[in-house]
Amino acid sequence: MTVTIIGLGLIGGSMALDLKTKRFADRIIGVDRNPEHSKIALEKGLVDEIHKLIFAIKEADLIVLAIPVDGIKKILPFVLDHTTHQVVTDVGSTKFEIVETVRHHPKRACYVPFHPMAGTEFSGPDAAINGLFSQKVGIICDMADSEQKSLERITQLTMVLNMRLIFMNAKEHDLHAAYVSHISHLTSFALALTVLEKEHNEKNIFNLASGGFDSTVRLAASSADMWMPVFSQNRNNVVEVMETYIEKMTLFKDLIASDAKEDVTRLIHEANQIQKTLTHFTWNNKD
Amino acid sequence: MTVTIIGLGLIGGSMALDLKTKRFADRIIGVDRNPEHSKIALEKGLVDEIHKLIFAIKEADLIVLAIPVDGIKKILPFVLDHTTHQVVTDVGSTKFEIVETVRHHPKRACYVPFHPMAGTEFSGPDAAINGLFSQKVGIICDMADSEQKSLERITQLTMVLNMRLIFMNAKEHDLHAAYVSHISHLTSFALALTVLEKEHNEKNIFNLASGGFDSTVRLAASSADMWMPVFSQNRNNVVEVMETYIEKMTLFKDLIASDAKEDVTRLIHEANQIQKTLTHFTWNNKD
Repeated sequence: MTVTIIGLGLIGGSMALDLKTKRFADRIIGVDRNPEHSKIALEKGLVDEIHKLIFAIKEADLIVLAIPVDGIKKILPFVLDHTTHQVVTDVGSTKFEIVETVRHHPKRACYVPFHPMAGTEFSGPDAAINGLFSQKVGIICDMADSEQKSLERITQLTMVLNMRLIFMNAKEHDLHAAYVSHISHLTSFALALTVLEKEHNEKNIFNLASGGFDSTVRLAASSADMWMPVFSQNRNNVVEVMETYIEKMTLFKDLIASDAKEDVTRLIHEANQIQKTLTHFTWNNKD
Repeated sequence: MTVTIIGLGLIGGSMALDLKTKRFADRIIGVDRNPEHSKIALEKGLVDEIHKLIFAIKEADLIVLAIPVDGIKKILPFVLDHTTHQVVTDVGSTKFEIVETVRHHPKRACYVPFHPMAGTEFSGPDAAINGLFSQKVGIICDMADSEQKSLERITQLTMVLNMRLIFMNAKEHDLHAAYVSHISHLTSFALALTVLEKEHNEKNIFNLASGGFDSTVRLAASSADMWMPVFSQNRNNVVEVMETYIEKMTLFKDLIASDAKEDVTRLIHEANQIQKTLTHFTWNNKD
């Protein structure tokens, strides 16, 4: 099968690696408007060939859009315009605005809105790694709007990547993604901004980072090219969860300021419950 | 050397393991008011003997207080009252209120205020692991107030644990600990509270956690017994940095709400700078 991957960054590049290793694809065509990324992707063997978009669409059996979500919104209608037999998917972290863009497109059924819940804080083809998707969750949205053949192809893709597949509608997806994933990135960005403002001595940041800061701030290295469009497209949900977050933080602050020991203890015990949720479900006991 | 460790949790237990393995101690006495912890510590071989506090002080060459910081404040004066030749240290995450408590104690010089910047989100003797302190920073505070012999003993201890030693005064320590370490725990607790309130479907939390939530929320499992007293003792610094954090988060929220794309991008780029700070300094290039 020929797979065309549009966008040779962390996600597109890592997917290319796995699809080649697992022999899902026998030919991978890369498309990237950044010539440097294309060069690295060829050199690292992520893709076999680099082509212009039109040719890459025509040659493909499966097309994966792995660019920021504002780019997906722009390019997806064009890709569907040129689709004959191809299955088209994307890996964007928002779904609602993207599916809205092609809701009435005559080729809508060839497209499967997809979100692999996998990534690192790094970006670009140099960040691509084997096994990035393994044992992670993949979400297919609005499955009723995609044709059988396309759904089967993306299901096969997730099996090859060793992902666990779940289904949601696009609206739900964006809500839950804001509630769990997008807010995590925002708390990390805000933490980085805070520490950079308060702690003027960089050496202190480095020295004290192993006290937990390193883990909570990890995501603050994430790319603006990817995340700004996510926050923009999903801003209603994102702003709602940020408001709740600010309320919780303000409550915590007020209780600490008034040295309300029992209330602070109670809040920490409540927060501790998250661990139960994260360990209650397991890969094998997923329902 | 006989080492008495008061408090057989994650930190005390892990220290016991290393001090035994590296033959720094040939006899480790444990003290814990929780009989279950004492039993586990004996069974796991973290300590050789369990004794009452008075006897454990008398028998020791080195005494390590590894209990929550409110407990340290209470017990440290009592330990110093009974000190004859022993070196005394603690591993608390705050320092100023603790050193104030014993500022005029006749045995103050036997005591070395210490803070190893190491830990995990788990607690109790079952969480104790070998090598917890390796390649982490250890902070000695107010060194001028401790006698030479005691400082040398704690320096040896950090070398045996493979830590990198730095020096601060207690007031500075608490400020910088709030700015980098304590705030990280608070952002994690607030994130957990937010997600537990917004996301009523626990399965969604589990399914979407690999999108970065798991790493940013890790510290939310941390123990209230340990952290409430830290926030209480260090509340002026903690509240100050929380205020800055809430400002940053509110700014972020307002910019996202008004879809100010360029400003959001700029904020993310600013936050990205933290990565440079964390990678600029390395273990070997520490100054």
